[in-house]
Amino acid sequence: MDIKALLDEVAGGQVSPEAAYEKLKEADQGFVHLDYARKERCGYAEVVFCSGKPDAYLVEIYQKIYEQEGEVLGTRATKEQYELVRKHLPQVVYDEVSRILKIEKPDKKRAGLIAVCTAGTADIPVAEEAAQTAEFLGSNVDRIYDVGVSGIHRLLERTDRIRQANCVVAVAGMEGALASVIGGLVKNPVIAVPTSVGYGASMHGISALLTMINSCANGVAVVNIDNGYGAGYMSAQINRLGYKEGGNQ
Amino acid sequence: MDIKALLDEVAGGQVSPEAAYEKLKEADQGFVHLDYARKERCGYAEVVFCSGKPDAYLVEIYQKIYEQEGEVLGTRATKEQYELVRKHLPQVVYDEVSRILKIEKPDKKRAGLIAVCTAGTADIPVAEEAAQTAEFLGSNVDRIYDVGVSGIHRLLERTDRIRQANCVVAVAGMEGALASVIGGLVKNPVIAVPTSVGYGASMHGISALLTMINSCANGVAVVNIDNGYGAGYMSAQINRLGYKEGGNQ
Amino acid sequence: MDIKALLDEVAGGQVSPEAAYEKLKEADQGFVHLDYARKERCGYAEVVFCSGKPDAYLVEIYQKIYEQEGEVLGTRATKEQYELVRKHLPQVVYDEVSRILKIEKPDKKRAGLIAVCTAGTADIPVAEEAAQTAEFLGSNVDRIYDVGVSGIHRLLERTDRIRQANCVVAVAGMEGALASVIGGLVKNPVIAVPTSVGYGASMHGISALLTMINSCANGVAVVNIDNGYGAGYMSAQINRLGYKEGGNQ
Amino acid sequence: MDIKALLDEVAGGQVSPEAAYEKLKEADQGFVHLDYARKERCGYAEVVFCSGKPDAYLVEIYQKIYEQEGEVLGTRATKEQYELVRKHLPQVVYDEVSRILKIEKPDKKRAGLIAVCTAGTADIPVAEEAAQTAEFLGSNVDRIYDVGVSGIHRLLERTDRIRQANCVVAVAGMEGALASVIGGLVKNPVIAVPTSVGYGASMHGISALLTMINSCANGVAVVNIDNGYGAGYMSAQINRLGYKEGGNQ
Amino acid sequence: MDIKALLDEVAGGQVSPEAAYEKLKEADQGFVHLDYARKERCGYAEVVFCSGKPDAYLVEIYQKIYEQEGEVLGTRATKEQYELVRKHLPQVVYDEVSRILKIEKPDKKRAGLIAVCTAGTADIPVAEEAAQTAEFLGSNVDRIYDVGVSGIHRLLERTDRIRQANCVVAVAGMEGALASVIGGLVKNPVIAVPTSVGYGASMHGISALLTMINSCANGVAVVNIDNGYGAGYMSAQINRLGYKEGGNQ
Amino acid sequence: MDIKALLDEVAGGQVSPEAAYEKLKEADQGFVHLDYARKERCGYAEVVFCSGKPDAYLVEIYQKIYEQEGEVLGTRATKEQYELVRKHLPQVVYDEVSRILKIEKPDKKRAGLIAVCTAGTADIPVAEEAAQTAEFLGSNVDRIYDVGVSGIHRLLERTDRIRQANCVVAVAGMEGALASVIGGLVKNPVIAVPTSVGYGASMHGISALLTMINSCANGVAVVNIDNGYGAGYMSAQINRLGYKEGGNQ
Amino acid sequence: MDIKALLDEVAGGQVSPEAAYEKLKEADQGFVHLDYARKERCGYAEVVFCSGKPDAYLVEIYQKIYEQEGEVLGTRATKEQYELVRKHLPQVVYDEVSRILKIEKPDKKRAGLIAVCTAGTADIPVAEEAAQTAEFLGSNVDRIYDVGVSGIHRLLERTDRIRQANCVVAVAGMEGALASVIGGLVKNPVIAVPTSVGYGASMHGISALLTMINSCANGVAVVNIDNGYGAGYMSAQINRLGYKEGGNQ
Amino acid sequence: MDIKALLDEVAGGQVSPEAAYEKLKEADQGFVHLDYARKERCGYAEVVFCSGKPDAYLVEIYQKIYEQEGEVLGTRATKEQYELVRKHLPQVVYDEVSRILKIEKPDKKRAGLIAVCTAGTADIPVAEEAAQTAEFLGSNVDRIYDVGVSGIHRLLERTDRIRQANCVVAVAGMEGALASVIGGLVKNPVIAVPTSVGYGASMHGISALLTMINSCANGVAVVNIDNGYGAGYMSAQINRLGYKEGGNQ
Repeated sequence: MDIKALLDEVAGGQVSPEAAYEKLKEADQGFVHLDYARKERCGYAEVVFCSGKPDAYLVEIYQKIYEQEGEVLGTRATKEQYELVRKHLPQVVYDEVSRILKIEKPDKKRAGLIAVCTAGTADIPVAEEAAQTAEFLGSNVDRIYDVGVSGIHRLLERTDRIRQANCVVAVAGMEGALASVIGGLVKNPVIAVPTSVGYGASMHGISALLTMINSCANGVAVVNIDNGYGAGYMSAQINRLGYKEGGNQ
Repeated sequence: MDIKALLDEVAGGQVSPEAAYEKLKEADQGFVHLDYARKERCGYAEVVFCSGKPDAYLVEIYQKIYEQEGEVLGTRATKEQYELVRKHLPQVVYDEVSRILKIEKPDKKRAGLIAVCTAGTADIPVAEEAAQTAEFLGSNVDRIYDVGVSGIHRLLERTDRIRQANCVVAVAGMEGALASVIGGLVKNPVIAVPTSVGYGASMHGISALLTMINSCANGVAVVNIDNGYGAGYMSAQINRLGYKEGGNQ
Repeated sequence: MDIKALLDEVAGGQVSPEAAYEKLKEADQGFVHLDYARKERCGYAEVVFCSGKPDAYLVEIYQKIYEQEGEVLGTRATKEQYELVRKHLPQVVYDEVSRILKIEKPDKKRAGLIAVCTAGTADIPVAEEAAQTAEFLGSNVDRIYDVGVSGIHRLLERTDRIRQANCVVAVAGMEGALASVIGGLVKNPVIAVPTSVGYGASMHGISALLTMINSCANGVAVVNIDNGYGAGYMSAQINRLGYKEGGNQ
Repeated sequence: MDIKALLDEVAGGQVSPEAAYEKLKEADQGFVHLDYARKERCGYAEVVFCSGKPDAYLVEIYQKIYEQEGEVLGTRATKEQYELVRKHLPQVVYDEVSRILKIEKPDKKRAGLIAVCTAGTADIPVAEEAAQTAEFLGSNVDRIYDVGVSGIHRLLERTDRIRQANCVVAVAGMEGALASVIGGLVKNPVIAVPTSVGYGASMHGISALLTMINSCANGVAVVNIDNGYGAGYMSAQINRLGYKEGGNQ
Repeated sequence: MDIKALLDEVAGGQVSPEAAYEKLKEADQGFVHLDYARKERCGYAEVVFCSGKPDAYLVEIYQKIYEQEGEVLGTRATKEQYELVRKHLPQVVYDEVSRILKIEKPDKKRAGLIAVCTAGTADIPVAEEAAQTAEFLGSNVDRIYDVGVSGIHRLLERTDRIRQANCVVAVAGMEGALASVIGGLVKNPVIAVPTSVGYGASMHGISALLTMINSCANGVAVVNIDNGYGAGYMSAQINRLGYKEGGNQ
Repeated sequence: MDIKALLDEVAGGQVSPEAAYEKLKEADQGFVHLDYARKERCGYAEVVFCSGKPDAYLVEIYQKIYEQEGEVLGTRATKEQYELVRKHLPQVVYDEVSRILKIEKPDKKRAGLIAVCTAGTADIPVAEEAAQTAEFLGSNVDRIYDVGVSGIHRLLERTDRIRQANCVVAVAGMEGALASVIGGLVKNPVIAVPTSVGYGASMHGISALLTMINSCANGVAVVNIDNGYGAGYMSAQINRLGYKEGGNQ
Repeated sequence: MDIKALLDEVAGGQVSPEAAYEKLKEADQGFVHLDYARKERCGYAEVVFCSGKPDAYLVEIYQKIYEQEGEVLGTRATKEQYELVRKHLPQVVYDEVSRILKIEKPDKKRAGLIAVCTAGTADIPVAEEAAQTAEFLGSNVDRIYDVGVSGIHRLLERTDRIRQANCVVAVAGMEGALASVIGGLVKNPVIAVPTSVGYGASMHGISALLTMINSCANGVAVVNIDNGYGAGYMSAQINRLGYKEGGNQ
Repeated sequence: MDIKALLDEVAGGQVSPEAAYEKLKEADQGFVHLDYARKERCGYAEVVFCSGKPDAYLVEIYQKIYEQEGEVLGTRATKEQYELVRKHLPQVVYDEVSRILKIEKPDKKRAGLIAVCTAGTADIPVAEEAAQTAEFLGSNVDRIYDVGVSGIHRLLERTDRIRQANCVVAVAGMEGALASVIGGLVKNPVIAVPTSVGYGASMHGISALLTMINSCANGVAVVNIDNGYGAGYMSAQINRLGYKEGGNQ
C-alpha cells in the first residue's frame, strides 16, 4: 500500500478523508511492516532451518532465496536433503560435520573476528554450525577447539588469540564450565552454547545450560542447547558492531 | 611481582638466571596475570555484589575501589548498607528501585545507545539495575517500559526508538515473550533477562527463562533470572563495540 | 431400570417398599447415568483415539459408531490403520498431515467461526488436527498459519480476520509466545496448544506449555502438548455457544 | 493522535501530504491501535492487578479507570491497599476472601450462567476471585463448593445445576481430579484452575496443574495455578457468547 | 432424604409415584449415597484436617462430629487451635509432637499390630501422626524409632518385632532407604512415608519420595511427603483385615 | 551353615568354644539370615524379572525355581524368552498382554478377593500384570476395566463389585484421577498404579504418579509407574490378611 | 551379649545346644554388631547434627559423648544452642561462621594435608564446616578461599599449594565450575561441595550440583548441597589413608 | 618454550630484558603448564572415551598412547571399534560386559584393595567398568555383586570382605539405597555410582543419584549416572594413598 500516494490523492481531492481513513484502518497495523523486508529489518536474509522440511518446500525455498540474494544458507540438513537440492541447484555445498547446506557468493569479504571455542572434540559439530554461520554472515572466525577446563593450560595458552576477538562463542557439554573461565579472561562478550554432549545427569544438555546461565563471570549470555546457528548469528551481529561504522555512536 | 625489574637484574648480573627461574616458577602461572589487573583484562573495574557482604568488608571494598578508580559501583545493596557506607563515603548515592549504591565520576561521557525494555511495571527494578549498570559503564540508555506483548501496540509504537540501539535488553517475567517479539524487529543483539515476576507455574522465573532460551527469533541470548546487572554489563560491552574504534576490524 | 414403573408397582402394591428399596440400592448410583448417553451428556458422539488400538477393536469401533451416527471421527491414525479400516468401510477418508481418519456426513452444515493460527509450518499437523476436528463437530474454520512472533507483522496483518472468530486456537512450539500476543488482540477466548516442535531446552513442549500457562494476556487457557484434538473440541464447544440459541441466557 | 482530523487537514490544505506522512510514520504502527482502546479491542475495561503496586500508582489508576468507566475492578489487593484507596474513593468495596477491591455500577445486569466448583473449602478464595470477576464482567454465577472427588456423590448430586451453565470453572488443589470428572459430565467448556492447596509432592500446585493438563476428558483447558481471575475472565468471555447475539453465526 | 419413608408413603398413597419420581430425580444420583454415611462407606468417621481451618468452622466441626460419634480426631492442629477448641470441648487432648487434637472414647479396644519405624529422630513427628491415627482407628502400634540404614544393626536387632506386625509404616527423610530394607525383611505390606527432613538435594522430601517409589523390595507402596495421617489410616485398614473376620474369604 | 550342628559339636567337645566363636564371627551377621529363605522371610517364593536377563541365566533360574517350588512366575518376558524357556520347560505358559511367563501348579486354591480397575483400555497390560501376579500368589481377582473418570457412571455402576474386595488396584495413566475417586468409595485399601499411557505433559507417567501421591482420598498408596507386578504383589499380601487366620490379632 | 561366655557354657554343659541356639536366634542379626561400636566400625566417634535437636536431648548427647570420648563435635548449631550447652559444659567453643560447636582435646595431633578451596567469599561458611570437621578428625587443612574460575589466575597461582594435599575439597555455588578446573590440576581426589550461593536458576544449589556431577575432570565426586561436614569427613578418611600405615597394602 | 635458556641469554646479553619480557608475556600463562604432562600432573596417563570417536581419530589416539605408555585404556567401546583397532594393534583386548578396550602391560603389579559392590546383576556392566579401570590403574579389586538391600543378609554376610578395602565403590540403580547401608558399615570412603537400571520414576538414574547425594551415612560421595570409569579412577586414587608412601604425612 502506497501511503504517500494516498495522501496525495487526499490532498488533491480524489479521495475523501473518510475513504482514506477506512483504507488505512483496513490495512491495519500491517501497512508499515510491509516496508521492512527481513534483510532491512534484521540485517541478514532468511536462513533455512532444513530439519523436517518437506522436500518440495525445501527445494522451492532454496531456489527463491538464491534468486533474491544470490546465495542461501541452510542448517541441520541431512545428506538426503543435499542430494535433493543439488539436483536443482548443482552449486550447492554440504558440510557433513556442521550439517550446513549452502551456496555462498564467491567474492564475499569477511571482517572483524570471532573466536569459537569448544571444551571437547564432541562439541565440534555445534561449533562448526556457529563458525560457518558467522562466516557466511561476513565474519572472520578463529577456531579454538578442545580446550576444556579439565586441562586448563590448553585454554590459557590460547588466551591471547581469544582476546583478539570482538566476540567469543563458548561451546561445551557435560558440566559446561568453559564459558565462565573464558568470561573471566576477555573484554568482549561471550555467547555460551550448551551442548547435549554427556550422559546421565547431563540430561541432554540441561545441566550445561544451567551452568552457563549461573555463570559467575560477567559478559556471558546463553542460547539454546546445541544452537550453534543462534550463537553464530548473534556473534556476527556483535562482531559487525566492532568493524562497521554504522553503530550508534 | 615486577618482572621487568627482575629481568633488568638478570641482565645486570645482580640475579643469576637460576635464581630468577626459581622466582618465576614460584610465582607460578600467576606471574603474568599480575600484569592484567581486572580493568585491563576485562575492560571494566570490579563491581561490588553487595548482597550478604559483611559490614566491615563492604566498607573496605568500597573505599579501596574508590581510591583506585575514583568511582565505584555496587549492586543489590540494602538501605542499611547505604547508611553504613555513607558514613565513610558521604558522596555515595543509593537508588531504592535498582538497589544500586555508587559513586560516579561527575564528568563521565556516555556514548552509543542501549534500549532497555520491560514487559510490565513490576519488571522495572531489574531493568533499572541493567540501565544504571550500563550507564555507569559508559553507555547511553533509552528506557522503554511496560510494553509487554499482551498489548502489542505499545511495543510497536516504539519500534523506531528500539531500532536505534546498538543492543537491546529485554526484561520480562511471567511468560517472557517480549524477547522473541523484539528479536524479530531489530538488527542488533538482544540480551533477554527473565524475571521472577509472576506466580504459580512461573516457578520464580524458570518459565520465563525457558521461553527466552527457546526463542524462535534470531539474535537473542539469555542471562540468569533477575540478573539486570549481567545484562547491563554485557550490553555495555556490545555497545562499546559499536562506538569505539578499537574493535577488531 | 425403569424407576417410574417400579414406583407404580409400589403404589399398586405389587412390590413392597422394602423390595423396592433393595432394587434401588442394587442399581446404585448408576441408575440415572444410564439415561445419559454420551451425545446427550456431552453434546458430541464419541471420537476414536486410534493410536495403539488393536486392529480388531479399531474396525469394530469404527463400524459401530458409523452405524449409530452415520459418521465417525478418529485421530492419530496411521496409514496402516487407514488401509485396514478401508477394507471394511471403503468410504473412509484419511489425511496424512492431521492423521485424521473419518467418514463425514455429506450434507453437514457448519456455523460460526474458529480461527486456527500457528507460529510456524512445523506446527501445522497439530493445527490441522484441531481444525478438522472443529469442522467435523460443525464449525467453520479460518486457517492462519506461519504467523509466529519473530516476524510480528505477519500476525498483525491478519488481526481483523482473527477478530471475526468466536474462538481462536493458537498452536506454537519452541517458546510458545504466539498465544499471549493473540490474547492481547482479540475479544473472544483463546485455546493455546503447545507443540513439541523445538529442541534442547524446549523439552518436548514443556517450555511452550509453561509459557502459555503463564500468559500475561487475559482469556488464554491451555491444553496438553500436541493436543490439537482437544483444542478443536473445546473451540467447537465455545463456537457453538456463539451461534446456537440454546445457550443459558 | 486524531487521524481523521489529520486527514481533514490534508484535504483542506492546512497540512501537506509530506508532513502528514511524516506524522503518520512517526506514530508508527501504533497509529491504528489508538483507535482500539482496550475495551473495544478486548471487550472489557482494564482490570488492576494490585499485588505489589506502589501506593501512589494504585490510587491514580483506580481514580483514572473509575472516571473513564464509572466502575473499577482490582484483584489480589491487601487490606492496607483497601484502606488507602478508600481515602480517595470512599465507595470502594473490599472482600477479604477473594481479595477483590472494586467499585461496581449499581444497576449492572447479569446474564447467562457460569458454574464455579471447588474440590475443597481451602480452594474457595481462588474460586471467589473467579466468581466475582465473572460477575463484575456481567455473568450470573452458581457457586458449587466442596464437591471433591473423594466423596463423589457430593458432585453427582449437583450435576443438573452444573449442566445449566454455559461454562464451568473447576477449582482444585492436591491431585486436581475434579476437572476431569466434571469434563465428563457436561456439554459446555470447563476452565480448570489448579490451586496451591496441598503439601509435599503437590509442589505448590504443579501436580494439580499437570493432572488438569493431562485430563482424559474432552473440553477442559487450564489456566495458571491460583489464577481465579483468569478463569473468571475467560468464563465470562465464553458465557457472553452464549447469551449475546453478537457471536459470529 | 429418607428413601424408605418415601417408599412407605408411595405404598400408603400419600405420595403419588410421579411426585416420588421427581423427588428421587431431584436428589439425583446422590440419593443412594445419603444412605452411605462416610463411616458406612469408608469404615471410619471423618477426620478433621485442622490446618488453615477458620476458627468458627473448626469449633463447629469438632462439636458436630463429637456429638455424632462420641469422639473426634483432628490432625495438623496448632496450639492456638487447641486453646480454642478446649473452650468448647474441655475434654479435648493435644499432642505437640504429632499435632493431633482429639477426644477419644475411654474404653476403646485395640487389636492387631502395626509397626511404625523411623530412620531418624527428626522423623518422629510424622511417625507419631501415623501411630496415633492408627491407634485412634483401633490398632495396636509398636514404635521402633531411629533405626536408619546408616547403622543397619539398629534395625536388624528389631527385625523380630517388626515381623509381628500386620503392616509396617516406614518413615524416612533424606535418602529414604529405610523402606527398601524393611520391605526385604518382612512378610506383610509396608507403607512408606517420605519426610521433608533433609536439606539441599532432598528437595523437601522429593528425593525420599523417589527413592521409595523406586524401591527394589516387594510389598512397598508410598504416600505423600510428611503424610503420617495417610499412612496411619491405610495401615489401620490393612491391620483390620488381619484381625477382623469380616474380610472377603 | 548349620548352627545347631555346630552347637552340638561344641557340647560334644569336638569343637572348642574358641573355634566355634571364630566360625560364627566369620559367618558374620549373615548366619541367622540363612535360616530365613525368602519364602519364609517374605511369604512368597522369588519372582523372576525377565527383562534384560541373559539367556543362559534365565533358563537356569527358571529351572531352579521350578525344581524347588514346583512352579515359577516371571514378569516382563519377551516372546523370544518364552521360546527359549519353552525348549527346556515345555509346560511354560506365556501371556502376550501381561508379558507374564509362568508355570503354575494345576491345583492352586485361590481365596479372598482383589478388584483390579483401569481407567482405559490402554492400561490393561499393566493391570493384567497385577491381576495375574495376584492370582499366582493365591488371590481371586475381579477385573473391572475401562472405568475412567471422564465417564464416571461406568465406575459408579460397578461400585458394589469393587466394595467386595479386600484390596483394590487402581491402574491409570494420563491424569490418573481414578485412584482418588475409588479411594472415596471403598472401605479397604487402594494400591494406585500410574501408567505411562498418555503423551506430552504426562511425562511418561510422572504426572499420573504425582496425581496419585497427592490423592485427596484416604487409604491410597502408590507404586512405581507401570509397576503392575508390585501392585499385584502388595494386594496379594493385603488380601491374605483378609482371608488367613494367621494375622496378628 | 557375651557369645564367648555362652559358648564356654555350652562346652561346659551348663547350657544345652538347643537353649544356646534359641538365645543366638533371639539376639538375631544384631549380636555381632554390638561388638562394633561406631568408632570401631567407622573410625570416628559420632558427630552431633545440632539442627532441630530438642534442648534436653542436645545437652544429654553432648554430655554423653564428652564423657565417652573426652571431646565432642557438633555441626549446624545455633547461638542459642551454644548458650544452652555452655551452661552444662563451660569449655564448649562455638564458631559463628561454620556454626560448629565443639570441645576438642587440647593435645590433638594432626597429620597429612587437605586443601579446602572456595569459589567466592560467600562459600566460606560451608568451607569452614568442612575444614574444621577435618581438623577435628585429625587432618591438617590449608584454606584457599575466593579462587573462583571467573578470575582463573587466582586459582593457578595457588596450584602448587593445592597439589600438596592428599585430598582437595572444592566448595562452590552459582555455576560450580571450580571442581572441574581443580580436578584437572591435581593428582589426588577432589570432593566437590555445591553450595546454595546464587539466585534464580541456581535453584538453591541444584545447578551447581549438576555441574559437579557432570564434571569432565577425573577424580571428582560430589556430596549434598552445603554439606561441608560430609566433605570434611570424607576428606579426613582419604587423608588418613595417605598418612597412616594401616592402609591395605 | 625454554625459560631457563632464555634467562641465560638475558644474563649473557644476547637478549635484552625488554625482548625477554615480551617473549614471556607472549607465552602467557601457558608457559609453566607445558612442564606438566598429564601423567605428571594427574598421576595417570590419558584414558580414551571411545563413544562417538571417529574411526581415524580412534586408531591414531590408541597408537599414540600405546607408543608413549606401552599400554592404553579405553572405555565405552563398541565391538565395531574393537574390530577396527585390532587391525592396527592386534594385541588389543575387548571385554563385552564392561565395554573396555585395552592393551595392558603384562607384568603390571597391583596393590591395595578396592571393593566394588552392586545391588543387582543388571548393575554389573557399570561395576565392571569401575573394577577394570581400577585394576588397570594398579589396584586390586574384590567384586561383590548382587547384594542389594531388599535382601540385606546378602550384604551383611560379606561385611568383613568389604571392610578390608581402602575404598568401596557402591553401584546401584532403582532406589540406590546400597551406598547408604555400606557407608554405615565401613571405615574407608565410599564412591557411589547411580545406574540407569530401573524404569518409570527412576528417570534413567536421576532417582538413584538423588538417593545417594542425600545419603544419611558419612563418607559417601557420588559420581555421574553409569559413570563406572569415574568411580574406578577415583577409587584408584584413594587406594593409592593407602598403599603408597608418597602421601603427604
